Amino acid sequence: MALEARRQRVMIRQVHPEVAGGRFAIKRVIGERVIVEADVFADGHDAIACALLHRHGHESTWHQIPMEPLGNDRWRASFGVTALGCYRYTIDGWVDPFATWRRDLLRRIEADRVSLGDLLIGVDLIERAAARAPEDAAVRLRAWAATLREEADLSRRQTVALDRELGALAVHYADRTRGSRYVRELVVTVEPVLARFGSWYEMFPRSCAPEPGRHGTLQDAQNRLPYVAAMGFDVLYLPPIHPIGQTFRKGKNNSMQGGPDDVGSPWAIGSAAGGHRAVHADLGTLNDLERLVEAAASRGITVALDLAFQCSPDHPDVQARPEWFRHRPDGTIQYAENPPKKYQDIYPLDFDCDDWEGLWTELKDVVTFWIQRGIRVFRVDNPHTKPFRFWEWLIAEVKRDHADVVFLSEAFTRPKVMYELAQLGFSQSYTYFTWRNTKAELTEYFTELMQTDVREYFRPALWPNTPDILSEYLQLGGRPAFIVRLALAGTLGASYGVYGPAFELCEDTPREPGSEEYLNSEKYEVRQRDLDVPLSLRELVSRLNRARRANPALHSDWSLRFHHVDNDRLICYSKRTADRRNVVLVVVNLDYTYTQSGWVTLDLEELGVPVDEPYQVHDLFGEGRYLWHGPRNYVELNPHELPAHVFELRPRVRTERDFDYYQ
Amino acid sequence: MALEARRQRVMIRQVHPEVAGGRFAIKRVIGERVIVEADVFADGHDAIACALLHRHGHESTWHQIPMEPLGNDRWRASFGVTALGCYRYTIDGWVDPFATWRRDLLRRIEADRVSLGDLLIGVDLIERAAARAPEDAAVRLRAWAATLREEADLSRRQTVALDRELGALAVHYADRTRGSRYVRELVVTVEPVLARFGSWYEMFPRSCAPEPGRHGTLQDAQNRLPYVAAMGFDVLYLPPIHPIGQTFRKGKNNSMQGGPDDVGSPWAIGSAAGGHRAVHADLGTLNDLERLVEAAASRGITVALDLAFQCSPDHPDVQARPEWFRHRPDGTIQYAENPPKKYQDIYPLDFDCDDWEGLWTELKDVVTFWIQRGIRVFRVDNPHTKPFRFWEWLIAEVKRDHADVVFLSEAFTRPKVMYELAQLGFSQSYTYFTWRNTKAELTEYFTELMQTDVREYFRPALWPNTPDILSEYLQLGGRPAFIVRLALAGTLGASYGVYGPAFELCEDTPREPGSEEYLNSEKYEVRQRDLDVPLSLRELVSRLNRARRANPALHSDWSLRFHHVDNDRLICYSKRTADRRNVVLVVVNLDYTYTQSGWVTLDLEELGVPVDEPYQVHDLFGEGRYLWHGPRNYVELNPHELPAHVFELRPRVRTERDFDYYQ
Repeated sequence: MALEARRQRVMIRQVHPEVAGGRFAIKRVIGERVIVEADVFADGHDAIACALLHRHGHESTWHQIPMEPLGNDRWRASFGVTALGCYRYTIDGWVDPFATWRRDLLRRIEADRVSLGDLLIGVDLIERAAARAPEDAAVRLRAWAATLREEADLSRRQTVALDRELGALAVHYADRTRGSRYVRELVVTVEPVLARFGSWYEMFPRSCAPEPGRHGTLQDAQNRLPYVAAMGFDVLYLPPIHPIGQTFRKGKNNSMQGGPDDVGSPWAIGSAAGGHRAVHADLGTLNDLERLVEAAASRGITVALDLAFQCSPDHPDVQARPEWFRHRPDGTIQYAENPPKKYQDIYPLDFDCDDWEGLWTELKDVVTFWIQRGIRVFRVDNPHTKPFRFWEWLIAEVKRDHADVVFLSEAFTRPKVMYELAQLGFSQSYTYFTWRNTKAELTEYFTELMQTDVREYFRPALWPNTPDILSEYLQLGGRPAFIVRLALAGTLGASYGVYGPAFELCEDTPREPGSEEYLNSEKYEVRQRDLDVPLSLRELVSRLNRARRANPALHSDWSLRFHHVDNDRLICYSKRTADRRNVVLVVVNLDYTYTQSGWVTLDLEELGVPVDEPYQVHDLFGEGRYLWHGPRNYVELNPHELPAHVFELRPRVRTERDFDYYQ
Repeated sequence: MALEARRQRVMIRQVHPEVAGGRFAIKRVIGERVIVEADVFADGHDAIACALLHRHGHESTWHQIPMEPLGNDRWRASFGVTALGCYRYTIDGWVDPFATWRRDLLRRIEADRVSLGDLLIGVDLIERAAARAPEDAAVRLRAWAATLREEADLSRRQTVALDRELGALAVHYADRTRGSRYVRELVVTVEPVLARFGSWYEMFPRSCAPEPGRHGTLQDAQNRLPYVAAMGFDVLYLPPIHPIGQTFRKGKNNSMQGGPDDVGSPWAIGSAAGGHRAVHADLGTLNDLERLVEAAASRGITVALDLAFQCSPDHPDVQARPEWFRHRPDGTIQYAENPPKKYQDIYPLDFDCDDWEGLWTELKDVVTFWIQRGIRVFRVDNPHTKPFRFWEWLIAEVKRDHADVVFLSEAFTRPKVMYELAQLGFSQSYTYFTWRNTKAELTEYFTELMQTDVREYFRPALWPNTPDILSEYLQLGGRPAFIVRLALAGTLGASYGVYGPAFELCEDTPREPGSEEYLNSEKYEVRQRDLDVPLSLRELVSRLNRARRANPALHSDWSLRFHHVDNDRLICYSKRTADRRNVVLVVVNLDYTYTQSGWVTLDLEELGVPVDEPYQVHDLFGEGRYLWHGPRNYVELNPHELPAHVFELRPRVRTERDFDYYQ
């Protein structure tokens, strides 16, 4: 222990939020607050004070905010984050002899036991404060000290001693030279709102051509924008748009022998025509992409690209940079495997090769290349099969120059690996939502994600389906099941997405029984559809996304609370803004076959609803309006009509709280 | 991030135990185990391995223990601590290409898809292992590689490739140069068993004279040893034995004006006769103390002294070292205060004075002085009114040379302050047990202390009474209340103590109603008692302490479990050894007035009792024997007979577990 540290009397412990002992940043988006708490205490009975210090990475000096005591030696303060990038925060604490003296003087006055000596101690402390203060404050403090020293009337002196304004001045100029600074500076990464809130739509451009049999283009995708915008999506995510390899190209339904007409998997990236920087000639050109990005932007839609760091055997780098791949003893390049399965159409990159720095830099340059073409959102394919340190480095490097970039981690893997990827910098992460179907599963999982410290770094993205996953629930439940999963995804998750048009068209046929793969998967072939079939959910999707945009309660996850329902097939939960001016209550029938009914028991205080006033619930999904009263209310949902209520609550009276843990 | 660190693929997270991000040591006593768990994982699908590293402070190299996977990326290993002082531990993790190859080869063989290339990769890996191995192992590995390379029969090669012994050898010589070391080295402080388990008896020597009116001596205290030993106590703790100041000496019942005959408070330390190194002349000499320590030791009793770092106005240091005290503007030394209360007979030391290093060194020398006279246990008076950093420094300094010293923190203050003192090094701590009376209070508090990470650093000492605290429960409940609190203290706490003879004589009269002070408190006067009165609890105390010594289950706190009783006035809990060879079940009637009865529902698996076998419970406190069967059993306790059962369980069959979290 350093010699001077031995004189620090104030301890600062249990700082919150803090991820993995400060190893990782916490996450916020523009406009949120960081509410910081800590145990701060000293030995003995002296009064202490503490301050939250914070500064943006661009600032060289700290802003200071006095912390407020919460009782039990816990203190709190908060600051808002208004700029992208990194903020730092830490805490200072110090013993304040002047505040101690004032507090004790008050007790002595109450007990009528003030001595002259007690007052003179204060004079000394005020003069010391004056010595630390700028001139104008010093003058006032010295005058105060003089009165306290010289005033003849002792009781008058007591009154003067307790002057609030002068007292505050003396406290402000406390001696902090022996104060304690918390051992760590903690970091907040601030990202765009889209990192927290957005509705995503995944779509294969090559399936977008209106003429039967034609390979769709980026221009066709652009023509599809009105359809996507009408459903109210914020992000249009495109699978890889690069040239596709020929060698070992997969055929329809992932067959090993692709024929000459097979289009191949977009994830088998690279051909003689180019690699990760090129656009597949059948899709169009870089200019076409830029036009699509612009056209989408004009409709409020952000285009997201796929980062799949792997190569087809035909990728130019395989020839140009063989040292970036792993070689087998026979000199061939090692293809991807999960023994005994082989993926001969894909070569993984060897992130640990001798020229790892060259490889890493190239991959960063690929990201920068697309950023320069207007892309700000990347869905990252299988990040868990590449080194954690690579992603930590890449994301930090990219965000240093482009703090507005959002990375979505597509890691459907073990929980600790998913959390690690989130901690090291991914803005958002796919979740197990896809396989959580029962009330118990949903309640447990989303309580973990949204009510524990996981939420400080892991932002969930809820996807009912992806091109890789047609869940059993969707396979079995038909259209009602799709609506259930849509309602859950869009209200449990501030960020959610669907793979369309498979989703809104309720495509539910697996490749074979027991498989989660789609039959005739778009991963291996062009799939054109009639979008105007009556079973389409486009109207419902549109209604849900409209409700999401209109209700700030649904823009964040931290306020999620589950409410009791006396029927396990019905789930009920709420989200709200911090001030409870916007409250959304959701009830979903998880049973896609039968009508379920039951009584919900609402936590009215949580909802800001007075116990003795009726309140209106307005269904933004199904459009009904009901007048409810008190905590217990009846619900009944027929899955073949509409299996979910998304209620906006409209109590006549609002309660408010000044201070809350989320936005 | 250092360049090379970027190549580390294994992550080591959530290491347990770890206190405050490694800022503080965890605690163990000689003979215990440290069970270490961590999340260890890498990207992708490669096999990983990890090892727990540990070494004693005296050792320069690590011992390594392979960690075992628990599932969900959690790993575990443990080591025993067999020497006093500090151990360090940390974790290494690495990717093992050889283990990965073997695992994948097995899968390929099962799928009958082995290629020659697959085998050759293994040859290369084995030769690399050989290059890292010592000569004899290298020879065997190379021979293996040669067979694998040259053997003509492919299926024979497969069999050879899976050789277990050679495989283990190759794994043993894995390449760990790019392995990861956990970021911190964590520390275990190992203390004597007494730090965890012991029965304490506090006694004022000056009250030990048999002749009425005579001031007792250390020799009188020595003569009292058979009485203390017969009750089965392990520690005899003496309040301060130093000269007592005359100035502002307190009179009986803490009156401000002491008379010439008043003996004063032993905590007003120091007179012309000496300070913290001196023995009060009326008690005897240093030699008398050394004799007492020896005589106690011969009966298995350790003598504990009081460390009260404060001075009476007559302490020699007040004259010799005025700079060690705080001065008021009028030049007088600041006495102790808790405004408006004043303690003019005590001057606090100014630990933050300009000569703080001189003062701290002097106080350390005081401790060393008593250590040299054979003292190894110190009860520290009000540590929370002295700087935390002082204690952290003092305890570390003392323990560096005397790792067998035990410090008990007498801090009855706010929870976070108590925990901080424990974290910074106190071996044991007084607790709120003194005021926890109901089943709910006891269950909640001891669950916090014994089932959460608090137990890694905070060792509870349970005291039903102290010279400062005659609790309301004891004041109101008479002899049954004393027995209740005795039984609870001695079975809930591996370490407990009483202030006697006030305790065993059931002294229950407060100074005034509403006060927790004793009437005619021994703090201010000599109190002689007839120890042979019939109401004395000495026999019960003796029986309890005998049960404690005989049952290892009661030597530790970590196994405490509460069992359900359908009567809130009855509390039921168990403790057991890790192997369940010793199980103690306690039932206490918390109602000191009325007989209470009810049905306990035992967790039989926890107790190691088969569901379908009867088992005997033998009351070591009340001496009854009962044959119980199954989880539900009837209990009835009359407080006026004996309000507690302390059962030793004797099932006919024992279940065992290999691995458990405590001793």
